[in-house]
Amino acid sequence: MPPGLDLDGGVTSPRGFRAAGVACGIKRAPAPPAPAPLDLALLVADAPASAAAIFTTNKAIAAPITVSRDHLTRAGGQARAIVVNSGCANACTGEAGLYVAGEMAAITARATGCTPEQVLVAAAAAALAPDGGSAAARAIMTTDPFAKACATEISAGGGAFRVGGMAKGSGMIEPRMATMLAFLTTDAQVAPDVLARALRRVADESFNAITVDGECSTNDCVFLLASGQSGVRVTRDDDTAFLDGLRVVAGHLAREIVRGGEGATKLVTVRVTGAQSAPDAWLAARTIANSPLVKTAIHGGDPNWGRLVAAAGRSGAAFVLERASVAIGAVPLFVAGTPHDDRADQAARVLDAPAVTVTVDLGTGGAHDATMWTCDFSAEYVRINAEYRT
Amino acid sequence: MPPGLDLDGGVTSPRGFRAAGVACGIKRAPAPPAPAPLDLALLVADAPASAAAIFTTNKAIAAPITVSRDHLTRAGGQARAIVVNSGCANACTGEAGLYVAGEMAAITARATGCTPEQVLVAAAAAALAPDGGSAAARAIMTTDPFAKACATEISAGGGAFRVGGMAKGSGMIEPRMATMLAFLTTDAQVAPDVLARALRRVADESFNAITVDGECSTNDCVFLLASGQSGVRVTRDDDTAFLDGLRVVAGHLAREIVRGGEGATKLVTVRVTGAQSAPDAWLAARTIANSPLVKTAIHGGDPNWGRLVAAAGRSGAAFVLERASVAIGAVPLFVAGTPHDDRADQAARVLDAPAVTVTVDLGTGGAHDATMWTCDFSAEYVRINAEYRT
Repeated sequence: MPPGLDLDGGVTSPRGFRAAGVACGIKRAPAPPAPAPLDLALLVADAPASAAAIFTTNKAIAAPITVSRDHLTRAGGQARAIVVNSGCANACTGEAGLYVAGEMAAITARATGCTPEQVLVAAAAAALAPDGGSAAARAIMTTDPFAKACATEISAGGGAFRVGGMAKGSGMIEPRMATMLAFLTTDAQVAPDVLARALRRVADESFNAITVDGECSTNDCVFLLASGQSGVRVTRDDDTAFLDGLRVVAGHLAREIVRGGEGATKLVTVRVTGAQSAPDAWLAARTIANSPLVKTAIHGGDPNWGRLVAAAGRSGAAFVLERASVAIGAVPLFVAGTPHDDRADQAARVLDAPAVTVTVDLGTGGAHDATMWTCDFSAEYVRINAEYRT
Repeated sequence: MPPGLDLDGGVTSPRGFRAAGVACGIKRAPAPPAPAPLDLALLVADAPASAAAIFTTNKAIAAPITVSRDHLTRAGGQARAIVVNSGCANACTGEAGLYVAGEMAAITARATGCTPEQVLVAAAAAALAPDGGSAAARAIMTTDPFAKACATEISAGGGAFRVGGMAKGSGMIEPRMATMLAFLTTDAQVAPDVLARALRRVADESFNAITVDGECSTNDCVFLLASGQSGVRVTRDDDTAFLDGLRVVAGHLAREIVRGGEGATKLVTVRVTGAQSAPDAWLAARTIANSPLVKTAIHGGDPNWGRLVAAAGRSGAAFVLERASVAIGAVPLFVAGTPHDDRADQAARVLDAPAVTVTVDLGTGGAHDATMWTCDFSAEYVRINAEYRT
C-alpha cells in the first residue's frame, strides 16, 4: 500500500522547516480593497540541511538557476534557505540578472543568519512560520489555477519521518529533468549524495514524466532539503521507505501541475506497453502526450484511436501496426490492428470524466512500458498564451 | 533570378498529362441545390512516365501508400496514372483497406488502358482533360481553405520544359520527408533514378521544411511524374535547371500548405543562423517552428523574443546565450545576449503582416543555417480538431 497523502500538508510538515509567503510588489496589484498578491516564498531550515537539486536542461539558463547551482556546489550539498519569487522569471537578463540573484542570496543570508552560499536563490525574509507552507505554496503561483502542496508520513527504522512539498506550473511544462518549480522537504536524515540519487530516481517517474505543452523552461528546477530532525537515517543501502515517501509526494505534485496546466480540463494518463525497449516506450509516450491532435480530440470528447495510432507510428519507436492496440479507459477500440468502432460511444462516455487513461500497445511483443501524464488542449491555452504580454 | 511562377498553372501545365476532379460521393454532400463536392482526382500521363515518390516515415502506413510503393517498385519507376480520393484516409484499415486500394488501381488501369502496377493509388475515371489540373487540385482538398496549384516554365537545352504541381494540407503537417499529399509533373525527359534524386533533394528544402502542428501523417506522400514530351533531357550531370524549376513549384506549394494550415492566420518563416552544424540548425528551426508558445505569441502579435530564446535553448542544438540574437522582421530585439525591449512596439507592427520572418542566431559562431515555414497557432486550430469526428 502506498503511503497516505496529507493534502493539507506541505514543505513545513517535516520537522525543522519554517516558511513564508509574502507580497513584495513584483506581481501587479489588483484594485483596492483586494489584497496584494503573494509573490515571494521563503523556505528556511532551522540548521544546515542536506540539499539536492535538479536543474533545467534548457541551454538558455535563467540567472537564479546559475546562482543556485553554483551555491549548492560551493556549500558542499548543504543549504539553509530557498527563496523564490513569482511574477518575474529573471531569464535572459545577462550580468544584471546574475547580480540581482546574487543580491537576493546575500539579503536572505543576512536575514536568516547563514552564508550566501547556503541560500538557493534569494530575496526578502518576513513572517517565517512553522505552518507557513501553505502561504509559500500560494506565493509561487503564476498562471496556476490552484496551489499545489502535500505531505506524507512514513514509519521506518523504529521511528517516523515526513516528506512534504510544493510546486507551481502551469505553462512551459515538459521538464525533461525537473519541472518548472518544485520544492521538497523531509526530516529524514540523509547524506547529500544519497539525497541526490533519490531525487533523480523519483523525478524520472514524476516531474520528468509530465507535459503540458512540450515546452522545457529556462527556469525548471526541483530542490529537496533534508533536516534530519526525525532521527530516521536513510542510507544508500536502505532507502526504500524514503523513496516511497518521496515518490508519493513528487508524483502527486507532478500530476497536480498537469491538472492545473494552462487551459486544461482533463488529466490524461498515457500508458504505453509492448515496447521493444525502455527508451522506445518513453519516446512513444512522450510523442502521444505532446500530440496536439490527440490532446484536442480528448478535449472534444472524441475517442479518436486513429490519432493515437498515428502519434505512436510517427514517434520513431518500433511499432507493428498489425499487432498494435489502443484502449480508452478499459474500452479496447483498436485490437491487434483491427478497429472496433462499435465501441466508440462507450469510449466517448469514458472521456467525459475529469481523469482519463489511454493505453497504446506498440505491437512489438516487447515487455517495456512507460507512463506519462498530460492534459487536454483547449482554446483557453491559446487564449492565455496569445494574450500574455512580457 | 528564380523562374517565374504561373499561379493559374498546375499538374496539366506540362505537356503529356490530363487530369480530372470529380464528385463520387465520398465527401458528405451539402443540402441541394449546392453541388456535390469534388472528392476524387485523377492524373493520367498520355504514355508511361518516369515516376518518383517519397512516402511517410510514420510506421502506421496507410493502405494507399503500401500499394503505391509496391506498384512503383514493380513497374520499375514508371507510372501512367495517379488517383487520389479525399474524405477518407484508408488508414489503419488492415487487409480490407489494402483490398480496396488494390481494386482502385485495377479499375483505374482498365479505364486508362494500362496495367494496375502503373497506377499509384486508384478509383473511377471521368472527365479527363488537358486543363483538368484546377479541378483535380480542388478534388484533393479536405480542411484546406483554398486549392494549391502552380506551374513554371524553364528554358534549357535549346528548348523549354515545364514543371507543375498541386498539393493539399492542412492539419497533421510535419512531414519529415514529404507532406500530406503533393503531386508534381514535368515534361522534361528524366530517367527514374535522376528523378528520384531530384525529388528527394528539393523535398528537403520544401515539403520537409514545413510544419503546421508537428504531426507527421500516416498518408504523407509526394509523387513526381515526368512525361518527357518537351524533348528537354535532364541527366545526373546536368540537372541544375530542372532542380530550379522543381524548387520553385515545390517551394510555393509547401508554403501554401502552411498558409492554409488549420486555423492559420500568418505564414511564419523561421530562420536559424550561427549553428555549429546543419543538423543543429534544423533541430533548432524545427523546435521553434513547432513551439506552441512561439506560435501563440505570434498569433497574439506579441514580439516575445524570450519564447524564441527558450525554444532554441531547449532544442538540443548547441546554443550560447551570451552571444545569441533574435530579430522579428528586421527588428533586433535581443542582440548578443542583451534585450532591446525599447524596440518591442516596432516589432509588434511587423507582426501585424500576414507573412512574418523570425531569425534566431544560436550564438555559437558556426556558419550553418536552416529555414523552415510554420504558421501561427489559433483557437480555431483547437476548434477544428476538437470538433472533428472520425
